[in-house]
Amino acid sequence: MTVHQDKALVLLSGGQDSTTCLYWAIDRFGQDAVSAISFDYGQRHRIELECAETIAGDAGVEHCCLPIDTFAALGGDALTDPSVDVGNDVHPSTDLPNTFVPGRNLVFLTYAAAHAYQHGIDHLVTGVAQTDYSGYPDCRQQTMESLQETLRLGMESKIQIHAPLMDRSKKETVELARDLGVLNVMARTHTCYNGKRPPCGECPACRLRAKGFAEAGIEDPLENA
Amino acid sequence: MTVHQDKALVLLSGGQDSTTCLYWAIDRFGQDAVSAISFDYGQRHRIELECAETIAGDAGVEHCCLPIDTFAALGGDALTDPSVDVGNDVHPSTDLPNTFVPGRNLVFLTYAAAHAYQHGIDHLVTGVAQTDYSGYPDCRQQTMESLQETLRLGMESKIQIHAPLMDRSKKETVELARDLGVLNVMARTHTCYNGKRPPCGECPACRLRAKGFAEAGIEDPLENA
Repeated sequence: MTVHQDKALVLLSGGQDSTTCLYWAIDRFGQDAVSAISFDYGQRHRIELECAETIAGDAGVEHCCLPIDTFAALGGDALTDPSVDVGNDVHPSTDLPNTFVPGRNLVFLTYAAAHAYQHGIDHLVTGVAQTDYSGYPDCRQQTMESLQETLRLGMESKIQIHAPLMDRSKKETVELARDLGVLNVMARTHTCYNGKRPPCGECPACRLRAKGFAEAGIEDPLENA
Repeated sequence: MTVHQDKALVLLSGGQDSTTCLYWAIDRFGQDAVSAISFDYGQRHRIELECAETIAGDAGVEHCCLPIDTFAALGGDALTDPSVDVGNDVHPSTDLPNTFVPGRNLVFLTYAAAHAYQHGIDHLVTGVAQTDYSGYPDCRQQTMESLQETLRLGMESKIQIHAPLMDRSKKETVELARDLGVLNVMARTHTCYNGKRPPCGECPACRLRAKGFAEAGIEDPLENA
């Protein structure tokens, strides 16, 4: 069922998960009611933002990109700091992966909610998942529920956070993309933590993606892109 | 009672309220355990950040300033946008004051929590108050409680948000500064929304400040600065 009266804003990173969510939102809310938001937070690989822009354009939805210079100033994280190695290493002072920026998703969703507030949008859609859980506490269902309450109180809004992949495995996310008829779009998404295209195949993000496609018995279109 | 084992981070804007909170924190946690954080979010009046730096220096606490370029990109708000008049006007699409940046305090506190996480600090101190309530839903007790829960879940931390002014009127905040013996420090704080020094005396912030000192029967040292 397509609900046309409500508007939705999709947090689009340019990766497989958020791209699948974009089409989930289009399916649910209708293309005209959907827009997308990305964040330029100094990620080492500009290709992510280029993918997001291309994907939003191909989907025919409005797209805006907000700058965030604060993460780089907070410093010390693998996704923004070239001095930190990416891999399976964990953060020296915690047992979280070293790609963890504390509260990153909380910040993204709060900014998305502020943008939504200004544009009369009541629905946020995010690709976070707790299934193939990689150690990010800001991706869990309980955190999302608490954040939704915080945003509603703090902005006096009726904002609703949708996380359609929350309980889906990577395999099930691939199957969702298939069911939505957008497997071909996956060729334009970016996953690799090392910013390689074709992907490095070695980093945790590449391996998780490959596992998802393998388990779904579907060839990753990215391989042939 | 001074508790020395715990570290506290004070969100310091350079204004009367957060400066009073800084000394509240020093009184409670001990000077060595306290540090301060400010945010350079493109406020029109740089004097605020200069005040914060001076005040932290005078108090002998570490001070860091994080840049936030995102609010200006979100746009359209009186505190960052020179095209918007400051005054008693309300936002055209809401009944909130036009100085309201949606979710501003949520963002500040989330970044402060991230900084605290990285530095082993469990206590955040903020000058928000719901008493002389000026229409900011992100300053209320209920919002702070929900945000604390969100930050704890999202960062797997034991962060605690203290808002010592939450239920104090401006009069009582002035009295707290007097009881802490730091009325003289108030001469170095900045309040005026119009960035004037001496203050304009006309904007809502100036009038609220004047009312607080008048009701406490104490002369504002800023007047003679």
